[in-house]
Amino acid sequence: MPNFTEITSKDNPLIKLVSGLQTSAKQRKSNGLFVLEGLRICEDAYENNIMFDKLIVTKSAIEKHSDIIEKFSKSSEKCYILREDLFKKISDTNSPQGIIAVAKIPKILSKITNNGRYIALENLSDPSNLGAIARTAEALGVDGIIMTSDSCDPYSPKSLRSSMGTLLRLPLFIVEDISDFIFSNNLTAYACVVDKDADSITETNFADGDVLLIGNEANGLTDTAKTVAKKCLTIKMSGKAESLNAAVAAAIAMWEMVKDS
Amino acid sequence: MPNFTEITSKDNPLIKLVSGLQTSAKQRKSNGLFVLEGLRICEDAYENNIMFDKLIVTKSAIEKHSDIIEKFSKSSEKCYILREDLFKKISDTNSPQGIIAVAKIPKILSKITNNGRYIALENLSDPSNLGAIARTAEALGVDGIIMTSDSCDPYSPKSLRSSMGTLLRLPLFIVEDISDFIFSNNLTAYACVVDKDADSITETNFADGDVLLIGNEANGLTDTAKTVAKKCLTIKMSGKAESLNAAVAAAIAMWEMVKDS
Repeated sequence: MPNFTEITSKDNPLIKLVSGLQTSAKQRKSNGLFVLEGLRICEDAYENNIMFDKLIVTKSAIEKHSDIIEKFSKSSEKCYILREDLFKKISDTNSPQGIIAVAKIPKILSKITNNGRYIALENLSDPSNLGAIARTAEALGVDGIIMTSDSCDPYSPKSLRSSMGTLLRLPLFIVEDISDFIFSNNLTAYACVVDKDADSITETNFADGDVLLIGNEANGLTDTAKTVAKKCLTIKMSGKAESLNAAVAAAIAMWEMVKDS
Repeated sequence: MPNFTEITSKDNPLIKLVSGLQTSAKQRKSNGLFVLEGLRICEDAYENNIMFDKLIVTKSAIEKHSDIIEKFSKSSEKCYILREDLFKKISDTNSPQGIIAVAKIPKILSKITNNGRYIALENLSDPSNLGAIARTAEALGVDGIIMTSDSCDPYSPKSLRSSMGTLLRLPLFIVEDISDFIFSNNLTAYACVVDKDADSITETNFADGDVLLIGNEANGLTDTAKTVAKKCLTIKMSGKAESLNAAVAAAIAMWEMVKDS
């Protein structure tokens, strides 16, 4: 086991750094770092070659998971050990496992391919929805998620947890201008809207190079996004409810896009 | 405005009753009562003719929503006013609106019709999944939810909240034996399973009188439920993820069942 630096003071800058990364998207952005908490998601990240900047564990976690922690520690730049009470201060869960990795936000290395099928999220605001959409996207074989930079942060604890780690595996494209991105990558976009007069999603024959556009939970897609789309599509609803939850609407739309591919 | 009895002691039996109904399915069952908290869900219930046994409000809620509270109070058997600090004790939310109705659990009055299409949940354990499934079922026009009595409680605060009130509107059939129920109502059941060798759900032509069977989140359907089914169906997944979330799987399955109906 490599050297673990012991931290005993709550005023240590590490405590402040990790707490900031747990709660603030701005802090994550400016540091280029995010937090992975718990064994399962650290394993997911490790297997996806995400670089650990720091590994932070408790003594009881080392005793319980020595093999795995040793493995993680070898690919971490620095390793720290914390008392349980200090660990609780930086944990985002009620019953912490005692394992946190501070990881580097991956650079976007993937490329859009014209035999892929994608989902694009414009200004999606709820991290649980983002996580749920990523989980469904991966299960159904969607090739990547494009999201506007004003959407919620894919590296927040909530997004990562609800994605079951899939946000660390799926190709993720964070873009400023969705129209530009779609145009320059030669994708064919379909706008998902709540509008009885729009074409039914069942009547569309999807093809490789297609992308579904999903808008903000409260406001839907902007006109700019709709303009870039070849067509507006809707999921026909016959019930009384106002609308489907965004994650469910995205799931049904992705299913229609990929089920025959 | 009718008479509101003022409650000033935290030892008043009403406080104990409401707290019990908020947290315990057993208490809800034995009292035949459940809690509706917040303006929106109370309105939903009121419009669906759900009987209010008690209406409990704070002074500031009366000031803010006098018309609506007067409307509710007229159809409540008893009305109470509580100080904010006592209201917080019985509230299930962090920032209470100051309105709670204690309502009678509705009797099952709906009947299965053979031109309906249904979803049946066997031992579903997560109230958020139940709520999400109800919301999707109503939006897509599914005609009712059948659920086994060992499933989570549809009248828990979590289920109701995540259903956006749809659990108060959709016909709900809580049954002991799902096979008996399907058989005696002459329904045709399809079991949704995670099994690569099962038939694809896209290859099934659904008809009126059909019901989709969805199992427990961790264990899936029991053999008994599978036996009553005409066929086992699966949502073909091409990705790496272990499985879809239960609410998402149910959404895609319901969509396939009703989209051409």
